[in-house]
Amino acid sequence: MAKLYREMTAEELKNEQKELLERYNCFKAKGLKLDMSRGKPGADQLDLSNGLNDIKDYVADGVDLRNYGMLDGIPSCKRLFADLMGVEAKNVIVGPNASLTLMFDYISQCFTHGAGDKAWCGLPEVKFLCPVPGYDRHFTILEYFGIKMINIEMKNDGPDMDAVEEYINDESVKGMFCVPKYSNPQGITYSDETVRRIAALKPAAKDFRIIWDNAYCIHDLDDNGDELLNIFDILPQYGNEDMVVEVVSTSKVTFPGAGVSAIIASDNNIAEIKKRLNAQTISYDKMNQHRHVEFFKNADGVRAHMKKHAAILKPKFDIVLKHFQNELSGRGIAEWFNPKGGYFISLNVMEGCAKRVGELCKSAGVTLTTVGATYPYGNDEKDSNIRIAPSFPPVDELNLAAELLCICVRLACIEKLLG
Amino acid sequence: MAKLYREMTAEELKNEQKELLERYNCFKAKGLKLDMSRGKPGADQLDLSNGLNDIKDYVADGVDLRNYGMLDGIPSCKRLFADLMGVEAKNVIVGPNASLTLMFDYISQCFTHGAGDKAWCGLPEVKFLCPVPGYDRHFTILEYFGIKMINIEMKNDGPDMDAVEEYINDESVKGMFCVPKYSNPQGITYSDETVRRIAALKPAAKDFRIIWDNAYCIHDLDDNGDELLNIFDILPQYGNEDMVVEVVSTSKVTFPGAGVSAIIASDNNIAEIKKRLNAQTISYDKMNQHRHVEFFKNADGVRAHMKKHAAILKPKFDIVLKHFQNELSGRGIAEWFNPKGGYFISLNVMEGCAKRVGELCKSAGVTLTTVGATYPYGNDEKDSNIRIAPSFPPVDELNLAAELLCICVRLACIEKLLG
Repeated sequence: MAKLYREMTAEELKNEQKELLERYNCFKAKGLKLDMSRGKPGADQLDLSNGLNDIKDYVADGVDLRNYGMLDGIPSCKRLFADLMGVEAKNVIVGPNASLTLMFDYISQCFTHGAGDKAWCGLPEVKFLCPVPGYDRHFTILEYFGIKMINIEMKNDGPDMDAVEEYINDESVKGMFCVPKYSNPQGITYSDETVRRIAALKPAAKDFRIIWDNAYCIHDLDDNGDELLNIFDILPQYGNEDMVVEVVSTSKVTFPGAGVSAIIASDNNIAEIKKRLNAQTISYDKMNQHRHVEFFKNADGVRAHMKKHAAILKPKFDIVLKHFQNELSGRGIAEWFNPKGGYFISLNVMEGCAKRVGELCKSAGVTLTTVGATYPYGNDEKDSNIRIAPSFPPVDELNLAAELLCICVRLACIEKLLG
Repeated sequence: MAKLYREMTAEELKNEQKELLERYNCFKAKGLKLDMSRGKPGADQLDLSNGLNDIKDYVADGVDLRNYGMLDGIPSCKRLFADLMGVEAKNVIVGPNASLTLMFDYISQCFTHGAGDKAWCGLPEVKFLCPVPGYDRHFTILEYFGIKMINIEMKNDGPDMDAVEEYINDESVKGMFCVPKYSNPQGITYSDETVRRIAALKPAAKDFRIIWDNAYCIHDLDDNGDELLNIFDILPQYGNEDMVVEVVSTSKVTFPGAGVSAIIASDNNIAEIKKRLNAQTISYDKMNQHRHVEFFKNADGVRAHMKKHAAILKPKFDIVLKHFQNELSGRGIAEWFNPKGGYFISLNVMEGCAKRVGELCKSAGVTLTTVGATYPYGNDEKDSNIRIAPSFPPVDELNLAAELLCICVRLACIEKLLG
């Protein structure tokens, strides 16, 4: 039976430390080189989509997809995303290989042309709400544009809505980034109440925009996945159709580097985005869109495909969680959330210890996501959060990496307690 | 022997008109539907690259190209573009399927972050020099950002450099768009002297940027193609390395909708672009980059491929020019340039007649590029320039379209002269 570290004597802690250091040095001697830093699918997951490469056809609805044209995507691919996301095809624009680009370009558009009001670049200050911990690449976009980030604490059912409702009374608060299903990094899905409160927001800024990054919308780990309300069904009740811009992609469905993304928005927002697109491109890659449609056939085809991913991913999540359970629980040194989908496990260790855990792991050959990266400006004030990405390493390597991580967490906490 | 229209009597003109109207009405009766509006390759040209679809391999230099990563492109594709363009691979970033996006994004970057000086969005006025006639999509980008466009007359050896050298003394003139080889629409290649004068410019604006859109760099119509000086070889003599940003693409080499583009720039500019890209994407489509490398093998492979395009395109250009020669020369109503490459023929008709030519063509079922589009704000003050795109229609259709166009030019000029 594990004992709470904070109740152990110095001597007990030192004995524990000695034992752990022996295990740690054994790992170090193995010369490992393992990577749990990014949410990269493993090679076996990528193999699931190799059929994409067999599709050589380039005509759809009588259109030669090799040539120019079709700014907002081929109709069949718009339909596929519309069916998957429960919206109308007219509210979908199919994008490039990364939804990140759709988000960056949208923020850039708000910066140069505004979102129905003044261009943001002309304002003295622009602020965004950032549920934390969150996705570092969202923060990178905001930092690039000099948009001030305000931390919003994540609860078990989504962002702290009391705080959100308070902050939006400030007119310079122009938006919020959300990963509403299987949030990055915790794997939390926003509750129905949270989604409703978001849809009902009455921000002081008329051009307040929520980037609804639904990156993990169909990424369940088993048949008991979370359900997320479709916010576009609710927004009209509050006249807030223009407040939310949703993005999705096949980055973690087919190939991360060569998938297809989509942006979903109100008629007004689609029109504004098309104005920009009309100057920015002639079309995105229609042949790749067609490959995806031919490969999946329809939304059911995509969902069936996701079950194959789940069969590969679930055991990997289980390995990490088993090690956490065995080595970290009952010691009062770490907390985590058991996600039902997504790509990450978020581990909160004793305050002031996360960076040290990262160092110890690195010295023994295991790379974690840069500690701090899950907070705006890389600044996790409590130095507590660690994002684990279990997808990329093969099972045997992951087993080693997760065990080593637990040893490092325990060692860092003992160091801290011994002072 | 053709007679100058302006020297013909009203009666002679009316007889000519009667004859032409008979021919015109014959065409009209055919119910044609022909398109010479855009520089779209024909289906037979696209077929040349279908081998791209046979490439299923996804590993290069030991890297799994299906997954995330490699922000600036795969090394082999950077090398391919570097070899083609005579620059170092470190000065190449491989982009998405359209160089248009690279240009738009670069201007957007200057707008939000500047180019080594203040962000352009904070300035009271930003102006660009636009050689005219020019490429409408360049103008669309500038208009989207509210950048004021100043017309610069194109001479037979490039933009009027006296005018350019004068305008750049104005600090609010921040740049210029150039298509230096086989310019769109005239097919003029900048002379060595023009390139040298451009490289030697001393603009008042320290952040003056020339977008060197080398869209037709390898697009000769036969073995006697024009030679363009490599401006990057000359810029260092004047300390102007940062002044030029070049883009190229395979849009008219492989598939317009699914090709690969590249941006070529100085070390400083590449670093600034990468700062943005780091927030905007994780990587462009590496699998498509790899397909292109495997398909071409090397720069010689690309050049050999371009000869196949020339074999298809040259006869089409010849058809149009033959009709011009037969029907328009000697009448003092039209001038044109015989290009050695590129995608267009630029026809200047008697002032005040171009729009009417477009109308007459349209009524008989032939679509031309919107008359006026070759000028900023769609405003061809002389109403004279017509851009002909001979690539897309099959030879027999092109024959009809070119003959009809000549009839329409003659009719419009007669109408004008008869007043």
